[in-house]
Amino acid sequence: GRPLPPGWKSYTSPEGLRYYVNCSSKETTWRHPSSSAEAPQRPLARQSSSPYGKTGPLYSQPSIFGHKLVFRTQSLAHSFVSSSILVIITLCSFSFLLQINCVTFPLPGEGPEQQLLKPDEWSYCDYFWTDKKDPQGTTSLPGFEVLLQKQLKGKQMQKEMSEFIHERIKIEEEYAKNLSKLSLSPLAAQEEGTLGEAWTQLKKSLHDEAEVHLKFSNKLHSEVEKPLLTFRGDNFKKDLKKYDHHIADLRKQLASRYASVEKARKALADRQKDLEVKTQQLEIKLSNKTEEDIKKARRKSTQAGDDLMRCVDLYNQTQSKWFEEMVTTSMELEKLEVERIEWIQQHLRQYTTLRHETDMFNQSTVEPVDQLLQNVDPAKDRELWVKENNTGEVRPVDMDI
Amino acid sequence: GRPLPPGWKSYTSPEGLRYYVNCSSKETTWRHPSSSAEAPQRPLARQSSSPYGKTGPLYSQPSIFGHKLVFRTQSLAHSFVSSSILVIITLCSFSFLLQINCVTFPLPGEGPEQQLLKPDEWSYCDYFWTDKKDPQGTTSLPGFEVLLQKQLKGKQMQKEMSEFIHERIKIEEEYAKNLSKLSLSPLAAQEEGTLGEAWTQLKKSLHDEAEVHLKFSNKLHSEVEKPLLTFRGDNFKKDLKKYDHHIADLRKQLASRYASVEKARKALADRQKDLEVKTQQLEIKLSNKTEEDIKKARRKSTQAGDDLMRCVDLYNQTQSKWFEEMVTTSMELEKLEVERIEWIQQHLRQYTTLRHETDMFNQSTVEPVDQLLQNVDPAKDRELWVKENNTGEVRPVDMDI
Repeated sequence: GRPLPPGWKSYTSPEGLRYYVNCSSKETTWRHPSSSAEAPQRPLARQSSSPYGKTGPLYSQPSIFGHKLVFRTQSLAHSFVSSSILVIITLCSFSFLLQINCVTFPLPGEGPEQQLLKPDEWSYCDYFWTDKKDPQGTTSLPGFEVLLQKQLKGKQMQKEMSEFIHERIKIEEEYAKNLSKLSLSPLAAQEEGTLGEAWTQLKKSLHDEAEVHLKFSNKLHSEVEKPLLTFRGDNFKKDLKKYDHHIADLRKQLASRYASVEKARKALADRQKDLEVKTQQLEIKLSNKTEEDIKKARRKSTQAGDDLMRCVDLYNQTQSKWFEEMVTTSMELEKLEVERIEWIQQHLRQYTTLRHETDMFNQSTVEPVDQLLQNVDPAKDRELWVKENNTGEVRPVDMDI
Repeated sequence: GRPLPPGWKSYTSPEGLRYYVNCSSKETTWRHPSSSAEAPQRPLARQSSSPYGKTGPLYSQPSIFGHKLVFRTQSLAHSFVSSSILVIITLCSFSFLLQINCVTFPLPGEGPEQQLLKPDEWSYCDYFWTDKKDPQGTTSLPGFEVLLQKQLKGKQMQKEMSEFIHERIKIEEEYAKNLSKLSLSPLAAQEEGTLGEAWTQLKKSLHDEAEVHLKFSNKLHSEVEKPLLTFRGDNFKKDLKKYDHHIADLRKQLASRYASVEKARKALADRQKDLEVKTQQLEIKLSNKTEEDIKKARRKSTQAGDDLMRCVDLYNQTQSKWFEEMVTTSMELEKLEVERIEWIQQHLRQYTTLRHETDMFNQSTVEPVDQLLQNVDPAKDRELWVKENNTGEVRPVDMDI
């Protein structure tokens, strides 16, 4: 027939039909690629991994995962039909998938762009898919761990702020104590007449000042220090641990299922080799029995293919579960971080408000603080932090056979 | 001759002229008192003590004392002319003068009302003439000492006020120190993003607050504490001592001159007795020589009278010097007290002004102080104090013979 363009190979399906595969673009077609007039079809191999990008924005409601799983089982059914095609495709299509710690990613620059799950926000759910290598590149940390550490650090900051406020409270109490003590001093108590009255009032005014500072420190305690200290008890750390374990377990499962995929893949390869040998024997007509052997070998090869399919599908199910968990959990952490920032912002505002009421300082000293508290913006903070700490925005895709 | 009205006596002057004295009203006249139609003359005895009341208001310019002394010497000259009249008058006129610690005062209710030297003010110069008895009435304190003690107490009050301010300064410095120390605390320094910026500014604002309080304490030191402390050095107490000694010396002199008056008075009495005896001897014509003896006795009696006059006049001169000194000095102390009160008022105002600038307290706490400082009034203070502490407003008068 006609010559194939570079990068194309032709195969015959078990049913004896001829089809074409482009090993670089992963394009697959029943028609001869030289007829370049028509647009190439979506590669078959992409079909099972495509839904993520599309349904991404819906992840904010975890309920949606139900549908996705339905969709996956359909694609599973479909793959059973054209099983032996896929079996053969994998021989070259496997090369465009990247495995990092048992997670399957598309090769950089391969395939269509992955759309962000939350395109308009710097959402945690988009940027922590791969692991974080430390500067030496020796040990690595799952992206999810980076998010957890952010949470723990936030809890620590909140605690330290309440400690800072506590120090301020102690200073105010001390100041008030000294002022009211001095206001009781007998010094010049014997001054007489109108001057004596003024002097007595002046001493008394120290007591009033002391009261102002005492009120300030009391309110600081009840309205700033305590809320900052008690916001999210130790249950918070327990909750984080739960997330952590759940995600970790899924990663373990993923690893074991990845192993079984590898095993099944090897078995299939053996079966196919055996089938080819038997086929050659048939062509040089060695014996009558071989007809039977080929049927048997093809059957076994098909079984091995189906077995591999099942393993891959189990793997993909686990990966999608892990994926779903990563998305929901990271968005949960994102919500928690926003809450924390807004809680702190609210109570630091209370701090400046109390200082305004107490009115015991130049307004100018606190105005810049108010300004900056006005400008506090959790989304912006997230953006800054994610830009600096994100581990990878390329999401995992289903493994193909 | 005609009968005299009750309380009247008739005498013959050494020159042989007859005159009349009313022992209760101290009225003296050359005419027979029964001719009641005409108004009685001012008692001779009053003439020499009258000028004080009249010239009183002029004492604010001490220079005036010059004139007064001239006036006194005139009255002295006059009393020499009618010497032997006065000599005899004293025998009954002496009873309307009161002696307190060698100072001569008019008997309460006797003679015309004494006009105040400064009728419109509660001036020190009007209210500290007599001595102050302590509750037990055992020991007594010269009125002038009461004024001196007021000054010393004032100096002490001023010192104690500056100590009070010093304590306040220490409190402010301590407060500022603690605030700026806390502003450098590393607590929550790792908070990130816009929240981190706001937090950093909040910590910095403590340093600004500290600066405000430090500035306050520095100004308190230079603009309030120091002026209150250094106002009137120790020279002030030396000056007071000088006044004290001067007045005390005059009191001593007054005492000695009072003694010599008493002595001269006794001598005169003896001489007059002797003259009467000689006169009776003459009437029953005992001898020829007695004519001579009477002349001699009358001469001696007249000398004794002149001698007493001189002693009385010396006494009165000292008393008037003491009087002048009392008036000038007490008005000097009055001036000093006014200065002190205004100085303190001014610097306590500076204190409240600084607190307003520092603006680190409810305005309401210092407003009443400002109010009362507005109302500080040295004259009112003097009035209150004088009303409570005055020792006597009846001024001394000249002693009469």
